[in-house]
Amino acid sequence: MANPSLLILPGDGIGPEVMAEVRRVIDWFGANKGLTFDVSEDLVGGASYDKHGTPLTDAAMAKAQEVDAVLLGAVGGPKYDDLDFSVKPERGLLRLRKEMDLFSNLRPAQCFDALADFSSLKHDIVAGLDIMIVRELTSGVYFGEPRGIHKEGNERVGINTQRYTESEIARVSRSAFELARKRSNKVCSMEKANVMESGVLWRDVVQEIHDAEYPDVELSHMYADNGAMQLVRAPKQFDVIVTDNLFGDILSDCAAMLTGSLGMLPSASLGLPMANGRPKALYEPVHGSAPDITGQGKANPIACILSFAMALRYSFDEGDNADLLEGAVQQVLADGARTADLMGPEGGTPISTTEMGDAILAAL
Amino acid sequence: MANPSLLILPGDGIGPEVMAEVRRVIDWFGANKGLTFDVSEDLVGGASYDKHGTPLTDAAMAKAQEVDAVLLGAVGGPKYDDLDFSVKPERGLLRLRKEMDLFSNLRPAQCFDALADFSSLKHDIVAGLDIMIVRELTSGVYFGEPRGIHKEGNERVGINTQRYTESEIARVSRSAFELARKRSNKVCSMEKANVMESGVLWRDVVQEIHDAEYPDVELSHMYADNGAMQLVRAPKQFDVIVTDNLFGDILSDCAAMLTGSLGMLPSASLGLPMANGRPKALYEPVHGSAPDITGQGKANPIACILSFAMALRYSFDEGDNADLLEGAVQQVLADGARTADLMGPEGGTPISTTEMGDAILAAL
Ligand SMILES: CC(C)[C@H](C(=O)O)[C@@H](O)C(=O)O
Ligand SMILES: CC(C)[C@H](C(=O)O)[C@@H](O)C(=O)O
Repeated sequence: MANPSLLILPGDGIGPEVMAEVRRVIDWFGANKGLTFDVSEDLVGGASYDKHGTPLTDAAMAKAQEVDAVLLGAVGGPKYDDLDFSVKPERGLLRLRKEMDLFSNLRPAQCFDALADFSSLKHDIVAGLDIMIVRELTSGVYFGEPRGIHKEGNERVGINTQRYTESEIARVSRSAFELARKRSNKVCSMEKANVMESGVLWRDVVQEIHDAEYPDVELSHMYADNGAMQLVRAPKQFDVIVTDNLFGDILSDCAAMLTGSLGMLPSASLGLPMANGRPKALYEPVHGSAPDITGQGKANPIACILSFAMALRYSFDEGDNADLLEGAVQQVLADGARTADLMGPEGGTPISTTEMGDAILAAL
Repeated sequence: MANPSLLILPGDGIGPEVMAEVRRVIDWFGANKGLTFDVSEDLVGGASYDKHGTPLTDAAMAKAQEVDAVLLGAVGGPKYDDLDFSVKPERGLLRLRKEMDLFSNLRPAQCFDALADFSSLKHDIVAGLDIMIVRELTSGVYFGEPRGIHKEGNERVGINTQRYTESEIARVSRSAFELARKRSNKVCSMEKANVMESGVLWRDVVQEIHDAEYPDVELSHMYADNGAMQLVRAPKQFDVIVTDNLFGDILSDCAAMLTGSLGMLPSASLGLPMANGRPKALYEPVHGSAPDITGQGKANPIACILSFAMALRYSFDEGDNADLLEGAVQQVLADGARTADLMGPEGGTPISTTEMGDAILAAL
C-alpha cells in the first residue's frame, strides 16, 4: 500500500520555523514506528504572493485536494497589510478551507497542568479546562454573497452576507454531537437567535438534529454574547461548543486565551470522507504568524506539533501514536522546558524553537 | 423653563425591581438638588407584548422620541422564547435604538476597587481597569436587508446582511475620538478587515476620520478575534475601543465580565442632538432581565442607578451630580454593602434590592 501523503504549507512569519520541528517529528515516526509519510511542500499566504502574485496557486490547491492531510503553519503579516483584499495572505487559507469543504473546525481549548499559572484567569477557574469548540468553517459571513464595497450616491458602502443553509448547519452539528459522545456528552450551541434570523435557523436545525439523531447528548443553547461572558466567568461549564464561522472565530480565540498558552493550541479542519475513507483535512496551530518574533528562534513549535498529533488521530486513525506524541509534550513541559512565550513572572532562561523540538524528540 | 423629561421603561424580569430604586434616586435629586424631572412610564419587551401583543407600541415609541432621555430596565425571558421573531421582546429594544437613531452605545467596563476580587481574572490584571467600549448601535447585521429565512429547493436558508455606510462609520468613530480626548486619548478600532469587506471599509473610514479630524488621538486597529484575546490577556492596554454592532455586542460583554461585576455596569446609547441641544438618549444596565432571580428582591440595582448617573452626565450636563451619585455608590461598596451577586467566596449576608437603594440614598 502506498504511504499516506502529507502536504506541508509552512506559510508566513514563524510558520516555516515551527514547521521545521514538525518535520523532525514526522521523520521520527517514520524511523521508529514504521509510519512513513510521503511529504511534499508548497507555498501559501504572503510567501506564495511574493513568488507567484497569488496567496495560493492552482497547483498548490490541486495538491491539497489530492493528499491525505495538509499541515499549515500560519499566514499573514504587516508586510501584506496594504495588499488588495483579493490577494491578501488570508485568502489562500480561506480558499483551502472552502474548496476542500472543511466544514468542521475543531479547536480544543485545553489548559495544560504545568502551565495553568500562565493564564490571566485565576488558577481554579482554568486548571483542568478542556473545551472543544466546533466552528463551522466553510460558510456564513466569511463566504456569503453579495459582498464588497460599492458606491451609493457619493458614499462608500461595505457589505457582507451571513448565509446558512439547513444542510450546512446539520452537518457541523452532527460533527459536534459525535465528538461530544466521545467526551462528556454535552453540547452548547451559540448564536444570536434573538437578533438574527440566521441564528433562529441555526438554533432550530441544531435542535432538530439533536432530537432526531442524538437525543442522548445533553444540548443547550446560548446567545453568543452570553457565551463570551460565560467563557470568561466559568469556562469549565462547557464540554463541546458548536457555533458558526464568525462567532467561532472570536469565541475560540477567547477560549484559547483563557488557557494562557496560545503557543500550545492545535486545530483540525475536517471535511467529507475521501475515496479512501479518510476525511479531507487540514491541521494548523491556533496562533498566528507572529511577525514580531519571526526568524529569532523564539517561536514555540508545540501548537504545530500537536496539530500533527491531531492529524495522526483524525486522519490516520493512529490514536495511540497521537497519545504518545501528546504525552511527550506533556512530559517536556512537566520537566520545565519553556520557550519564550511560556516564561512566567518568575523568569528563567527560555529555550529555542529547535531546543524544544530536541526535547520532544528526546521524550519520544 | 419646563422640567427635563424622562421616560421610564422598566421592561421584563428584574427590570421593574431595579427601576423602582432608580425612581427613588430620581426623587432624591428632585428634593435635594432642585433637579426635578417630569417622569412618565410605559411598557417595553415581553411586558408590552403581554398587554398589547407587540414589544413596543407606537404610542410608547412616540413618547420615547419626545422625552429628553429614556431609562430602560431589561427585556426578554424564557417565557417569550417561542414567540415569532417579529414580536420577540428584543424587537422592542431594537426598534427604540433604530428609530431614535442611537448610533453611539457607550459601555464602560470598569473594575470597582472594592470588587476586583470578584473577577475570574487575577487581581493585577483587572484592578483599576477602565475601558470605554463605543459600539455602533443602529446598523450592521442587526438591521441590514435582505434578512430572513426562506426555502431554496427543499431546504431552509437563513440570511442576514452586514452593511455599513461610510457616514455610519464616520459618526460613531467621531464619538469614540471625542471620548478618547476626555480620557487617555487612545482609540483601538476592531473589525475583521482580513476577511470582510465591510471591515475593510470600517478600518479605512476610521483611519480617514482620525487623520483629518483627530490626528492628536492615538489610533490602532485590531482584528476582532485578536481583540477578544487581548481583552482576556491584558485588558488594561485599552482606553477606548470602537467597533461595530455585532462585534460590540460580544466584545463588550466579554469586557464587562472581566470586571467580575456585571450587576454594576451601566450603558448609554446616544444619537443626534435634538432641538434643545440634548442628544437623543437611552440609558440601560448591561445586565439582562435575569429571570432566575426575578421577584425575589435579590437583584442589584446599581447598574441601573449608574445608568441614571450617565443620563445626568450625558443628557443633562450635570457632571457634578453624576459624580455625586457615582461617589455614593463607591462609598456603599467600600462600606461593604453587597447584594447577592456580589457575594464572594468568603460569604456573608446579602442585602436586598431595596436595602441597596436605601444605602445609596443614605450615602447621598
Ligand atoms: C487568518 C484568518 C483568516 C482566520 C479566520 O478569521 O478564520 C484566523 O483568524 C483563524 O481563526 O483561523
Ligand atoms: C437584548 C439584545 C437584543 C441586545 C443586543 O444584542 O444588542 C443585548 O445583548 C445588548 O447587548 O444590549
